[in-house]
Amino acid sequence: MNTSFKKIQGGVTAPNGFTATGVHCGIKKEKLDFAIVYSQEQAVAAGVYTTNAVQAAPILVTKKNMKENKMARAFVINAGNANACTGEKGYQDAEKMVALAAEKLGCAKDEIIVSSTGVIGVSLPMDAVEQGIEQASVNLSKEGSCKAAEAIMTTDTYSKEIAIEFELGGKLVKIGAMSKGSGMIHPNMATMLGFITTDADIDAFALEEAIKDATGNSFNMITVDGDTSTNDMVAIMANGTANNEKVTLDSLEYAKFYEALEYICVEMAKQIARDGEGATKLLEVEVKNAKTKEDAKKAAMAVVKSSLVKTAIFGEDANWGRIICAVGYSGAKFNPEKVDISIGDEPMAIDGTGLAFDEDRAKEILKEDHIKVFVNFKDGDQKATAWGCDLSYDYVKINGSYRT
Amino acid sequence: MNTSFKKIQGGVTAPNGFTATGVHCGIKKEKLDFAIVYSQEQAVAAGVYTTNAVQAAPILVTKKNMKENKMARAFVINAGNANACTGEKGYQDAEKMVALAAEKLGCAKDEIIVSSTGVIGVSLPMDAVEQGIEQASVNLSKEGSCKAAEAIMTTDTYSKEIAIEFELGGKLVKIGAMSKGSGMIHPNMATMLGFITTDADIDAFALEEAIKDATGNSFNMITVDGDTSTNDMVAIMANGTANNEKVTLDSLEYAKFYEALEYICVEMAKQIARDGEGATKLLEVEVKNAKTKEDAKKAAMAVVKSSLVKTAIFGEDANWGRIICAVGYSGAKFNPEKVDISIGDEPMAIDGTGLAFDEDRAKEILKEDHIKVFVNFKDGDQKATAWGCDLSYDYVKINGSYRT
Repeated sequence: MNTSFKKIQGGVTAPNGFTATGVHCGIKKEKLDFAIVYSQEQAVAAGVYTTNAVQAAPILVTKKNMKENKMARAFVINAGNANACTGEKGYQDAEKMVALAAEKLGCAKDEIIVSSTGVIGVSLPMDAVEQGIEQASVNLSKEGSCKAAEAIMTTDTYSKEIAIEFELGGKLVKIGAMSKGSGMIHPNMATMLGFITTDADIDAFALEEAIKDATGNSFNMITVDGDTSTNDMVAIMANGTANNEKVTLDSLEYAKFYEALEYICVEMAKQIARDGEGATKLLEVEVKNAKTKEDAKKAAMAVVKSSLVKTAIFGEDANWGRIICAVGYSGAKFNPEKVDISIGDEPMAIDGTGLAFDEDRAKEILKEDHIKVFVNFKDGDQKATAWGCDLSYDYVKINGSYRT
Repeated sequence: MNTSFKKIQGGVTAPNGFTATGVHCGIKKEKLDFAIVYSQEQAVAAGVYTTNAVQAAPILVTKKNMKENKMARAFVINAGNANACTGEKGYQDAEKMVALAAEKLGCAKDEIIVSSTGVIGVSLPMDAVEQGIEQASVNLSKEGSCKAAEAIMTTDTYSKEIAIEFELGGKLVKIGAMSKGSGMIHPNMATMLGFITTDADIDAFALEEAIKDATGNSFNMITVDGDTSTNDMVAIMANGTANNEKVTLDSLEYAKFYEALEYICVEMAKQIARDGEGATKLLEVEVKNAKTKEDAKKAAMAVVKSSLVKTAIFGEDANWGRIICAVGYSGAKFNPEKVDISIGDEPMAIDGTGLAFDEDRAKEILKEDHIKVFVNFKDGDQKATAWGCDLSYDYVKINGSYRT
C-alpha cells in the first residue's frame, strides 16, 4: 500500500456526507437483501457497466439516468433477484424502484443509481422492493455501511468494504467502497457490483475517466469463472464536501486522486477474487516485460481464467505446464523461447524450457492461501496483474444448485 | 446419421491397407502408451494443428514434414509425455522419434506424422520411446486399431474409435478414426488428438480442404475446459486403395466424401465431449436462425464453455438465465429481445423474457445423460452446434492432482 493512504474504519459511509443501511425486505428468505447509500449533498457520479449484450433492466435505467444527469444522490440496490430477462415488465419495475426511492429520499428520479443482483429471468417482487425502500430510507445512518455491504451479497461468504483517507491539495479526503462477487466474475467490467463514495471535489469528466481507468486495472483484471454477468456495474459518487480545490483532468492532483481510487478498486477486486465461489486461495498472476500492456493483460487473464491452472492450484500441484499453455493460447504476442515462469520465488521454466525445480519448496509455496505466479516475457517493459482463485469442489457444489 | 453411411467394425484399420497397434513401452507405469498406425501404400496426408503460440516439439516436426511432403506412411504417437516446453533437446527427441520409426518402418522420415500427449515440460524418456517403436513396428496388424486407440489415451475413461463405409463413384470406400480427449479440450483445433485413415483416392488439396472444414464443424466446436493445448492435432491419411476415381475439389464426389468425413469428425468430437474429464452428461447446444455462421458458432461455444451453465447441468438445475447470459457475452450479434431458449423440448424463454415453465418436466429432461439446449435468434438462417459436458466434482479431483 502506498504510504500516503491511510486505511480507516468503515466503508461507503466513511467519507463526509454519506449515510447507508441494509435491510431485509423479503426478496431473500431471511438475509439482508436491500441497501441504500445516500449522499446528503448532490454528488457528481460516474459508472462503468457490463458489456454483456443482454443487459438487465436496472442497468438500462441507470445508464439512461446517468446519461441525462451526471449528478446522483443515492445507490439503491437489491440482492436475490437480478431483474434481467424480465421483458418490458422488468424495465417498468426498475423505473418504479427508482421512482419510489426518489420520492422517499426527496430527490429527482435521475439522481438514483439503481442496481439488482441475483437470479435471472424472474420478475422482481415489487411488494418486497417497496418494503425495502420504505425501511431503508428511514434507517440511513453513518454506521450503516456494514449492513449495506451485507445486503448486496449473493453467494459471497463475507461482505466487502474498505475506506482510506489521504491528503489532496492540503485537504483531508476520504474514499469508501463496498462490493460483491462472487460468481459470474469476469470482465469486461461485467464483473460484480462495486459502489464507491468520496467526499473529494472532482468534476464529472475527471471522475468518469478515473473510474474507467481504475476499473480496467482492477475489477476488469479479476475472474472467478469467466462468465460476464448481465447486471454488473461499478458506480461512484463524489460529493465535494472535503472542500479540496476541484480536481480536473488537467490538475496536478488528478494523479493522486487516481492513485487512491485505483488502490481502492484493486483492494476490492482482490477481495472479490479471494471470495470467488468455492475459492480456497487467491491467485495473483503478474506478467512483466511484455511489448504492450494489452499483451500483458491478455496473458495474465488467460492464466487466472484457466480451469486447469485453477484446479492445479486447488490441488497444490506445481503444474506450470498449464501456465505456459494458457499464456500460449491467450492471444498475447510473445516469444515462447524467451518466457520465464515462476511460482512464488521458485523458478519453474527459463527460456520456455522446464527446470528441475525443488518440488518440496513448490509444495510449501502452494500451501499458502495467496499464490503468486510470475511470467516474464523478457521482451519489453509493460506489465499487468490479474487476480483469480482456485477451482474447488465447492465451486461445483455452489453452482450445481444455485436456484434450489 | 446419413443413411448412405454404414457403421462398420474397427477404427483406423477398417480401411484397406492400414495396420496398427498399441504397446506399453514404459512412459506410463503400466498402461499402453505407444501407438503406430501404418499405411502399406504411400498415402496422401493432411493435418490441422493447435493454434497455441506454445507448440510442442512433435507439432513443429510434423508441420515441417507435412510442408515438405504431402505424403505419409504412418502416425507415430506416444502418451504420458507431451514433449512440450522441452527446449532444443525436445526438438531433437521428436526428430529422433521420427528417424527411428522411419528406419523400422522402411520409409522416409518426412512420411512420419509424429505426435505426443501428456505432461508438459518434462523430457521424453528416449529409451522407452525406442522400445515403443521397436515393439510396435513388429506388432502391426489389421486387428490392432483397438490397442492403438487405447495407447493414445491420457485421462480418457474409454478409447474412441469409429469406422464407416459408403459408396463413392461406384466403389466401396471406408473411413476409420481414433481420437483422445479429455482435458485441455478447446478450439481452435487445439483440442485433442484425432487420427483418421481412409482408402479413398483423393488429391492432396481436396484432402486438406476437407479436413480443415470438417474440423471446424466438429473438433473445433467442442470444449471441456476452455484450455487449448500445446500438442493437439487432427491428421488424416488417404491411401487410394479403394480405386475410386480420384476425388478433387471440383469433382462431384467431393461433397459426398466431405459429408462422410464430417460425420466421422462430429462423432469423434461428441465422444470426446461426452468423456470430458469428470463429465456425467453430454451437453449439445444448437444456435439457429442467426445472421451469420460465425455468430451462431460464437454463441453456441460460449454456452458449452460457461462454467456456470456446466455446473447447472451437473446439478440438473434449469438455470436458463446462465444460458442467455453466456449468449450475451459471446460476442455474437443478436437481438436480446428476440431470442428464444429451450432445454430439450421445454421452452424457458421467449423473446428474451423468462416463462413460467414446468419445473418437473425440466427436471426430467435434465436427468438424461444427453442434454440439448436450443437457442433461436429468429434473425437469419445460419446455425451451428457445439458440444461439451457438465462440470462435476470429479473434474476438480482429476485436475487437482494430474501430475501426482
